[in-house]
Amino acid sequence: MNQNNSILIKNVQLNGKSTDIYIEDNIIAEIGKRMEADHTINAEGKVALPGLINTHTHSAMTLLRGYADDLKLDEWLQKKIWPFEARLNEEHVYWGSKLACLEMIKSGTTCFNDMYWHMKGTARAVEEMGIRAVLAEAFIDLFDDEMMENSIKRTEDFIRYVKNLKNSKITPALGPHAVYTVSEDGLKWISEYSRENNLLIHFHLAETKKEIRDCRGRYGKSPVKFLNEIEFLSENLISAHSIWLSESEIRILAEKNVKVSHNPVSNMKLSSGFMPYSLMRKYNLLISLGTDGCASNNNLDMFESMKIAAIGHKLVGNDPRLMTAREIFDIATINGAISLGINAGRICEGRLADLILIDPKRPEFTPGYDLISDLVYAANGYCVDTVICDGSILMENREVRNENEIIEGVKRVVNEIIGK
Amino acid sequence: MNQNNSILIKNVQLNGKSTDIYIEDNIIAEIGKRMEADHTINAEGKVALPGLINTHTHSAMTLLRGYADDLKLDEWLQKKIWPFEARLNEEHVYWGSKLACLEMIKSGTTCFNDMYWHMKGTARAVEEMGIRAVLAEAFIDLFDDEMMENSIKRTEDFIRYVKNLKNSKITPALGPHAVYTVSEDGLKWISEYSRENNLLIHFHLAETKKEIRDCRGRYGKSPVKFLNEIEFLSENLISAHSIWLSESEIRILAEKNVKVSHNPVSNMKLSSGFMPYSLMRKYNLLISLGTDGCASNNNLDMFESMKIAAIGHKLVGNDPRLMTAREIFDIATINGAISLGINAGRICEGRLADLILIDPKRPEFTPGYDLISDLVYAANGYCVDTVICDGSILMENREVRNENEIIEGVKRVVNEIIGK
Repeated sequence: MNQNNSILIKNVQLNGKSTDIYIEDNIIAEIGKRMEADHTINAEGKVALPGLINTHTHSAMTLLRGYADDLKLDEWLQKKIWPFEARLNEEHVYWGSKLACLEMIKSGTTCFNDMYWHMKGTARAVEEMGIRAVLAEAFIDLFDDEMMENSIKRTEDFIRYVKNLKNSKITPALGPHAVYTVSEDGLKWISEYSRENNLLIHFHLAETKKEIRDCRGRYGKSPVKFLNEIEFLSENLISAHSIWLSESEIRILAEKNVKVSHNPVSNMKLSSGFMPYSLMRKYNLLISLGTDGCASNNNLDMFESMKIAAIGHKLVGNDPRLMTAREIFDIATINGAISLGINAGRICEGRLADLILIDPKRPEFTPGYDLISDLVYAANGYCVDTVICDGSILMENREVRNENEIIEGVKRVVNEIIGK
Repeated sequence: MNQNNSILIKNVQLNGKSTDIYIEDNIIAEIGKRMEADHTINAEGKVALPGLINTHTHSAMTLLRGYADDLKLDEWLQKKIWPFEARLNEEHVYWGSKLACLEMIKSGTTCFNDMYWHMKGTARAVEEMGIRAVLAEAFIDLFDDEMMENSIKRTEDFIRYVKNLKNSKITPALGPHAVYTVSEDGLKWISEYSRENNLLIHFHLAETKKEIRDCRGRYGKSPVKFLNEIEFLSENLISAHSIWLSESEIRILAEKNVKVSHNPVSNMKLSSGFMPYSLMRKYNLLISLGTDGCASNNNLDMFESMKIAAIGHKLVGNDPRLMTAREIFDIATINGAISLGINAGRICEGRLADLILIDPKRPEFTPGYDLISDLVYAANGYCVDTVICDGSILMENREVRNENEIIEGVKRVVNEIIGK
């Protein structure tokens, strides 16, 4: 990654016009002025866009890409995913996260929201790769007091660890897994801790019908009603999936300013269901986009997720006008930034310099009537040529430092894990 | 395109083992033998796969990529697509088809099935690009005798034209558009002509609910029942879309050996519905994969279509075991070959040398547990490194001859068309 105090992106297309973008330190300082800089990028013919923001993933699950597919959810989790995960340590998670960061950078993502185990490994990977991230240690107690105490300790320890890094690109968050894996006391501790320390909460909510059924069995009410009663719902909550919701529940989420992370590819691959987009829009819920982890997607390409979201809603909602290209592009950029409280998601003066250059001289951008349509419906992450995050160049001409070492490192640790 | 009498692909991965593939003229002559050839490809680290076969597209519609999206079907067709198409001539279709061939080659497709207007332009493009294709001039009479006579003339003329090309890679076919655009007499002429000349019929069938409703209005029965009565259904028929079918209709299609082309992306983007895969499998219908044209997809990447098909059926069928990676890979290769009567779709001795090399040294193929899973769920067309069709190299190291000229040519003719 290139450390410059200032970068000038010359002759780049921005909103249909050719201009220059001047970056000072980590901020987009000026647009349209011709000036000198420590480093100049000749962007003739390229297009500047905000970096994509992935609001739900488990980055180290790149280690599980292709390890198990096409199975029933129970079998998939119990026979394949969980036994594999039980063998993971921080070093493995570090390598899996490095691979995820590499893949995200190569497909134009500059910021992601992650919840997993051994997250110090992820923090280390994120720091080395130069990307921006919100990181949460997974909190699971399985309704057991001792596990809850342990989860609290791991959570507090991880938050301290991240704060000590003093890396402005890494934000700590809380990672309660779901209503079926965290006790009421655990959830209450989380929401109090979130309020006191102003931390985001990264949570799986209403992902499967079974979750709703089980919650009714345990608490006599749906997850949203239960969480509302224990005052868990707040503007700090990023609610991943959010599929099985009634209109009144959506209204509650909107009233509490809960942020939703839509994960269309994972939801399709696992047959989970599809998010009620029209109803959510009716109540002005803030929706962002996630890929989920590589076990259920199996990549981290937000371009692909944009397309599948947009065409998925057209099919499920039986209306080709649902979720336009412009809508999903905003969902994948500015909505993600707002959800994560990051001053990015748009290219304008004063925002963080998290941006990408794409190269539209490709068949899939030809003839080129509508850039946003081509980005969403025709392109994939390979259109990304250059990635800048926090004012540092992470990729130029599709080259990322140490790509081969990362791929080899992952193959090495995977042999360790499955050889055990 | 490289014209060699023999090609040796050295040290390539084939079905998990390193071997050599020896191509003589247009045939895979030997696998596993070490020998000399006019041209040697060092394929160390690369994987050989059969070229993908796209069984339903309108290639020249690349000209309409991104021209109109997110609209209601009627508005989309009547206000945008049809007025644009009315301005097209053979030269425009030639350039649109060149772009389509370029895009298909770059994403690993070696053969496609096309129906459109001014198809001599497409034939010319296909010939220059070196790809394999089944081409049909669209037959539409709108229930008007004069239009029918004209369509018959155009069809006969085009078939003569293709036969005179004496290009073994181009097969002429018949292109009746659909049951709502071709009269009963027109359809009867088509099926008789198909039988007499042993020609494939490329047809849209049961794509929308409206088509079924309108057919019941006109003929008092569903399209399949009507077509069965007039003896239109046969093993020569490639039925694109095939969504709105009852079990008894699927049984009829199976009995008549009709081939189905599945077009998941287009069907989602236009909110058409989703093909009843489980029922079709129950009756052993031969299913292949198509992208449809770029107005409704908006690319020609069969890798993307494989993923969207597989995850789409999991969602719609509410079962994550539906349409495995292996199934959709076969659907996109060998099933396409059988459907189009092409001796390709698998890499084995004696088959046509239509094959691709992919480069798995990429994040999305790491760790690499299962190649087919990675191809379907993690990769996209950019993983393709080399494309060989009919024993000629069409792409090596992702380079296709005249790529920039084609992109510029398309931009030029599009300015002509929309400037009119």
